[in-house]
Amino acid sequence: MKPVLVLNGPNLNLLGLREPEIYGCATLAELEVEVREEAKSLGVPVEFFQSNHEGALIDRIHQARGNVGGVLFNPGGLAHSSVSLRDAVAAVDYPVIAVHLTNTLGREAFRRRDLIAPVCRGLIVGLGVTGYRIGLRALLAVSNQ
Amino acid sequence: MKPVLVLNGPNLNLLGLREPEIYGCATLAELEVEVREEAKSLGVPVEFFQSNHEGALIDRIHQARGNVGGVLFNPGGLAHSSVSLRDAVAAVDYPVIAVHLTNTLGREAFRRRDLIAPVCRGLIVGLGVTGYRIGLRALLAVSNQ
Amino acid sequence: MKPVLVLNGPNLNLLGLREPEIYGCATLAELEVEVREEAKSLGVPVEFFQSNHEGALIDRIHQARGNVGGVLFNPGGLAHSSVSLRDAVAAVDYPVIAVHLTNTLGREAFRRRDLIAPVCRGLIVGLGVTGYRIGLRALLAVSNQ
Amino acid sequence: MKPVLVLNGPNLNLLGLREPEIYGCATLAELEVEVREEAKSLGVPVEFFQSNHEGALIDRIHQARGNVGGVLFNPGGLAHSSVSLRDAVAAVDYPVIAVHLTNTLGREAFRRRDLIAPVCRGLIVGLGVTGYRIGLRALLAVSNQ
Amino acid sequence: MKPVLVLNGPNLNLLGLREPEIYGCATLAELEVEVREEAKSLGVPVEFFQSNHEGALIDRIHQARGNVGGVLFNPGGLAHSSVSLRDAVAAVDYPVIAVHLTNTLGREAFRRRDLIAPVCRGLIVGLGVTGYRIGLRALLAVSNQ
Amino acid sequence: MKPVLVLNGPNLNLLGLREPEIYGCATLAELEVEVREEAKSLGVPVEFFQSNHEGALIDRIHQARGNVGGVLFNPGGLAHSSVSLRDAVAAVDYPVIAVHLTNTLGREAFRRRDLIAPVCRGLIVGLGVTGYRIGLRALLAVSNQ
Amino acid sequence: MKPVLVLNGPNLNLLGLREPEIYGCATLAELEVEVREEAKSLGVPVEFFQSNHEGALIDRIHQARGNVGGVLFNPGGLAHSSVSLRDAVAAVDYPVIAVHLTNTLGREAFRRRDLIAPVCRGLIVGLGVTGYRIGLRALLAVSNQ
Amino acid sequence: MKPVLVLNGPNLNLLGLREPEIYGCATLAELEVEVREEAKSLGVPVEFFQSNHEGALIDRIHQARGNVGGVLFNPGGLAHSSVSLRDAVAAVDYPVIAVHLTNTLGREAFRRRDLIAPVCRGLIVGLGVTGYRIGLRALLAVSNQ
Amino acid sequence: MKPVLVLNGPNLNLLGLREPEIYGCATLAELEVEVREEAKSLGVPVEFFQSNHEGALIDRIHQARGNVGGVLFNPGGLAHSSVSLRDAVAAVDYPVIAVHLTNTLGREAFRRRDLIAPVCRGLIVGLGVTGYRIGLRALLAVSNQ
Amino acid sequence: MKPVLVLNGPNLNLLGLREPEIYGCATLAELEVEVREEAKSLGVPVEFFQSNHEGALIDRIHQARGNVGGVLFNPGGLAHSSVSLRDAVAAVDYPVIAVHLTNTLGREAFRRRDLIAPVCRGLIVGLGVTGYRIGLRALLAVSNQ
Amino acid sequence: MKPVLVLNGPNLNLLGLREPEIYGCATLAELEVEVREEAKSLGVPVEFFQSNHEGALIDRIHQARGNVGGVLFNPGGLAHSSVSLRDAVAAVDYPVIAVHLTNTLGREAFRRRDLIAPVCRGLIVGLGVTGYRIGLRALLAVSNQ
Amino acid sequence: MKPVLVLNGPNLNLLGLREPEIYGCATLAELEVEVREEAKSLGVPVEFFQSNHEGALIDRIHQARGNVGGVLFNPGGLAHSSVSLRDAVAAVDYPVIAVHLTNTLGREAFRRRDLIAPVCRGLIVGLGVTGYRIGLRALLAVSNQ
Repeated sequence: MKPVLVLNGPNLNLLGLREPEIYGCATLAELEVEVREEAKSLGVPVEFFQSNHEGALIDRIHQARGNVGGVLFNPGGLAHSSVSLRDAVAAVDYPVIAVHLTNTLGREAFRRRDLIAPVCRGLIVGLGVTGYRIGLRALLAVSNQ
Repeated sequence: MKPVLVLNGPNLNLLGLREPEIYGCATLAELEVEVREEAKSLGVPVEFFQSNHEGALIDRIHQARGNVGGVLFNPGGLAHSSVSLRDAVAAVDYPVIAVHLTNTLGREAFRRRDLIAPVCRGLIVGLGVTGYRIGLRALLAVSNQ
Repeated sequence: MKPVLVLNGPNLNLLGLREPEIYGCATLAELEVEVREEAKSLGVPVEFFQSNHEGALIDRIHQARGNVGGVLFNPGGLAHSSVSLRDAVAAVDYPVIAVHLTNTLGREAFRRRDLIAPVCRGLIVGLGVTGYRIGLRALLAVSNQ
Repeated sequence: MKPVLVLNGPNLNLLGLREPEIYGCATLAELEVEVREEAKSLGVPVEFFQSNHEGALIDRIHQARGNVGGVLFNPGGLAHSSVSLRDAVAAVDYPVIAVHLTNTLGREAFRRRDLIAPVCRGLIVGLGVTGYRIGLRALLAVSNQ
Repeated sequence: MKPVLVLNGPNLNLLGLREPEIYGCATLAELEVEVREEAKSLGVPVEFFQSNHEGALIDRIHQARGNVGGVLFNPGGLAHSSVSLRDAVAAVDYPVIAVHLTNTLGREAFRRRDLIAPVCRGLIVGLGVTGYRIGLRALLAVSNQ
Repeated sequence: MKPVLVLNGPNLNLLGLREPEIYGCATLAELEVEVREEAKSLGVPVEFFQSNHEGALIDRIHQARGNVGGVLFNPGGLAHSSVSLRDAVAAVDYPVIAVHLTNTLGREAFRRRDLIAPVCRGLIVGLGVTGYRIGLRALLAVSNQ
Repeated sequence: MKPVLVLNGPNLNLLGLREPEIYGCATLAELEVEVREEAKSLGVPVEFFQSNHEGALIDRIHQARGNVGGVLFNPGGLAHSSVSLRDAVAAVDYPVIAVHLTNTLGREAFRRRDLIAPVCRGLIVGLGVTGYRIGLRALLAVSNQ
Repeated sequence: MKPVLVLNGPNLNLLGLREPEIYGCATLAELEVEVREEAKSLGVPVEFFQSNHEGALIDRIHQARGNVGGVLFNPGGLAHSSVSLRDAVAAVDYPVIAVHLTNTLGREAFRRRDLIAPVCRGLIVGLGVTGYRIGLRALLAVSNQ
Repeated sequence: MKPVLVLNGPNLNLLGLREPEIYGCATLAELEVEVREEAKSLGVPVEFFQSNHEGALIDRIHQARGNVGGVLFNPGGLAHSSVSLRDAVAAVDYPVIAVHLTNTLGREAFRRRDLIAPVCRGLIVGLGVTGYRIGLRALLAVSNQ
Repeated sequence: MKPVLVLNGPNLNLLGLREPEIYGCATLAELEVEVREEAKSLGVPVEFFQSNHEGALIDRIHQARGNVGGVLFNPGGLAHSSVSLRDAVAAVDYPVIAVHLTNTLGREAFRRRDLIAPVCRGLIVGLGVTGYRIGLRALLAVSNQ
Repeated sequence: MKPVLVLNGPNLNLLGLREPEIYGCATLAELEVEVREEAKSLGVPVEFFQSNHEGALIDRIHQARGNVGGVLFNPGGLAHSSVSLRDAVAAVDYPVIAVHLTNTLGREAFRRRDLIAPVCRGLIVGLGVTGYRIGLRALLAVSNQ
Repeated sequence: MKPVLVLNGPNLNLLGLREPEIYGCATLAELEVEVREEAKSLGVPVEFFQSNHEGALIDRIHQARGNVGGVLFNPGGLAHSSVSLRDAVAAVDYPVIAVHLTNTLGREAFRRRDLIAPVCRGLIVGLGVTGYRIGLRALLAVSNQ
């Protein structure tokens, strides 16, 4: 079974340290532990990659072609500005599900424009770490269809 | 343990019969069977309500106060036009998670304006019936926090 | 031959009593008489339904599935606000022709946005009761294609 | 002397129970008591109707034709979305004064668009229950002109 | 009895040859035959004029003053850009009904702005050649009012 | 008991003389008589100030600090353009209620943008001189809360 | 002394016959008589050209190069839509003054966008035939600078 | 014969000293001399008033009621921001013609919005001091109609 | 081999004479010489047509059906306003490549909206006469695919 | 050495008394003391002027011509609405630096439009009284260039 | 002779593998072979650089200063979002011609905003690999001017 | 005392070489010398970092946590497009002051949208290298509060 790639964009390395009243107290390492446990219980291998560089995320999405069963992708702020990441997601044929820790639709106006979600298979927002766990399940479900 | 209410808005009674290339082939009854099984495996009682009447949905959201642990809500087209449903969701204190079968962000421009999602705990779009199943899990997770 | 359903939305029950300088002096009953006569001359059965409730109109559109040859639909003010009615019209496979008594394009700016007409087979505006009569003919013509 | 109808729209049945920091602590029943007392002191009969259904509110506005001296109308969230209610208010010839408990102009952007107020005789916002009491007086004043 | 002028704007001379999946297979000549038959059955003389020149259409509308009972006008793409044609239609006192073969409200965004329809007596869209036939009837009906 | 200040902005000195079909026939002096009578019946002292100068109105709002129980403020056209008046109202801690003689929401588009109302306690529009009288009552009511 | 060309665009041939409550009762011939008299009193030769064809107006503007002292130009409805006429005016080096009979800034919203005026030397609106007469004087004045 | 008032708004006192490449080299005093000569040749008395204060301009417009035959008004930058001046012009019944020295339609975007011109009798832009001279003639012409 | 038609829209007949700092010094005749030479070197016959009339351009595009291998089209200012030309280009099946002498994307805002380019095979802007020469090559290349 | 003028607009006289959580606790007098000290340490004379009247500020800016080395200008709310103040700043040739106590870009949407800053030499926002002090230094630096 | 740099932005490394129905079947390597051949036939050296990193593209544009005769630049999705790349192109003095494989003007709305093209010498869209070949020729032509 | 980090974004490495009429003649190295001298005179250590990579700037902002007393940040063109940089600035708790060499508010429209300034402590624009020097002072002042 091909692994799932959990891809985190800019500033997610600061999770737990950054505006905890908005993003929660769990660090990225703790988030990865939780996701790894969920993955283990579902019997699917999981890989992680985080970068603050748009280009590095695009490169990683390209490299994943043929090597992953799907990608769980939190593009961070790039969701609202990067046409290139959108094009990268549209260019690959494995399923991508977008995740946001916070409810981006209820925040600043510029976060309401999401360039990447429209080319993803699905989107999950506002559910914190739980969003990653259920996203993993959803990825398996859509892969089996 | 208080039950979860699965609330479906306008036109969802036609599921499976309506534009299957967009909304899939499962009927509302079949969707309810799937959700009921997921709920049983999670050990949580579940109730269903569907209506094409905005007012009936508001009434049901009001009545659920004190009687449910949370609501999984697919407002259908009302997501894009109803300020009153938004106010109803904002008026109750149990968690509400919004679900859309399709990826509403990748469809017509008027579907990109979502009045209800900003006052929900979270939002799940584009994942079909799977969206309801993982939404149920998410509701339990956020209720336990 | 399956009947044609003439569906009238909010405030059309007040026809003739309401702003006659805009909507004309004929009452809804008189309009129905005229349409019935036209239908008789065309040899097609005709049914009428009017409601001020969006949900009731959606229900009626659903029930008409398999029972009508087409629908002549004046959605009144809901044309400018109801995504759910639009979805209902898009969900059925019989032809729907939209009618407005007045020339909605020449009135207030918010009436220029029509959510329902884009998913109808055709639209007739500004011709008063005559609009219904020729709409009936058009419905027969498109049904025979 | 014809009675005044006090018409309350969606979610106002939850008054006092719903976001009290925004809408205040008085329940709808308590609001009605206050308005009834003011009406008694002014010597005018008063009736109340609340519904979460747009269609029911339209029906009630129609029925009031010939039976009321005027209507004090809090359309709730429908103020910002319902063209049909606007048309209903424009269709009757008794005076209608719109009331909002909160200062809708100082809240979310979508509340700044008010479809109903432009066809009312007047509008009173931000004054809580007091708004209903002075609205009653205003209705009497404009009826006597 | 004064004749009806059927006025066709730019590109309608290519009818049947041009994007038939959008505009249908009937040529302009065939359309004129159909309209002529309908006119004969209604006992009204009919004239035809087509031009790709905005100015020629304006000239023709001017010349028709006093000579026609009404005009059935498909302005083609000029509907969305020509203030001058709008002014020409507003300048004459015979009734003008606008016709579009396709449902212009369900196509590109720039087609949703119609400068000419607001100053016409009525508008018929989306009904192909049938739209011209029922437009002819409507023109007679409004002329007799 | 501290007096109420009735503050009138630009052009209100022309009341009765200016577009009477819009603003009514009562002069500013007559309006003041009516308001004075209402104030007397309520047992509250009242002061009047009118100016066509934005700066003079700001000065007066500042001077009223500590000296009035509240302000009834008709900013006239400045409601739609003056950020400075808005800031002045936001800078004082006595209650301010805005009044407009006409229903500004039903007039030109630029009058629909109200910079001052959002920072007032309440807003009353469309009720002519009655609006001032009930505004006085409202001011007393909110002062007693 | 080179002549002044008075150029009139679409529908101005109908002057006096067309919506006289908006455009006045003088015909184009009468307007030309008045302008000719003014020109005579100023000692400047004057030529007239009117067309409903955008292309003919462009051709005429081109031909005037080297042959006129200036152009007084009423582009009619083309003022609001024709980039090509704007480019034609920008392409010539004699002074052009735009004239509108009516106050286009106080009419429909689409008339507020004027493509041609920004590249003219000046603009005169709302003054009827007087606008042409004073425009002639202005043209002489700017030619002498 | 009643005099004409020439009213100049903010910054026009700096004429000739201020951005001469835009506004020309003539001072306000020189402009007044030119206008006075033109007025003398036309046999009409003329008065001048300039202020940088919106309120002072409103006051002056009010005072002119009954005392002038018309006003030639250059509102300067207030043309683009002052609703109150617009209301003042709309409130008086003598004719007002607006003048701008420069072609405001060809400058910054915010100058394209003109609040005052729509309620004036006419508007003259881009013609420098000549604009005042021909404006004076136009004022006499419209006064004689 | 079928010829290529080089189609030039409004004002291009003034090339070299018109705003040379923007459009360069070569006249239309010189441009045609250059293009003819390039065509000869490529062994393809070439025809030229220029008109200031939108209708004549549409007619020419229609007539070219079956007679040309492709069209190189500089619509001039009509690119930004003509829906009818867009429809004409969309109606033919030979390849059309749009050319602009200047970089229209870096000029006025209204030139950024291009109605015709979206239905062309390609677009070349900003390269002056060179744009025509390489456009010719591109037309041959796409015709051979 | 010519003095620097520190110009404060509407409501700044209330500094320290007005919304201290936004504008800080220092009064205008205290701010002036701090600025005076900084000026003394820099060896530059300094003058102060505050007014709530747009016209008075324009007058002061005009009078400063030839008398000051530069102006440090906090236009308060007028920054967002006054075209006339913008024109006044553009009309003088001494350097003007705009200052705002708060970070106006992070507040209400209408404060994001700044009419005056674009014609100033520079802008300093969000730094409270410090903004004035460093603004003084900046003014000296740019004067010495 | 200085070489031409062919610069490709994000996702162009996936050419041929990515949405071939939109971007064609040729890989980036094949594209480079074609361009190299064209360059050889034109006698100009050519270099290639592709990166998914905005920063790397900016660095490469900077390094090319003094070393290249011009750049042929396909910025991919960055064309629609990167102000920094725009500034980089504006900062160098060699000619840059932008190329897009597809007709970006006929695709999603967000692709219609092109930040980079306005500061390029020219733009070529929709012509696939041919666009690069003719772009190379154009670059030589403009370098020789 | 912790050092201040002076962070420069894309294209600032070309300072002095790039559009000197806009950005001035000083190179980045010369700017750094000036800032270093100012820092020395203020007794604060200073570090410099410049990158054309958004990701590298985000990384640097993260690394500075705990190591700097504040950051003076010129984000260059990223100010107008990068949500991720905004999120990075919002995620750290040391003070950040944004600087732009030019008056970005007076340039192209897209530069008027600043995503980063709203989450900074302050913003200084238009003052060239002086902006950095006074920014350093401001940073010290706000650190001492």
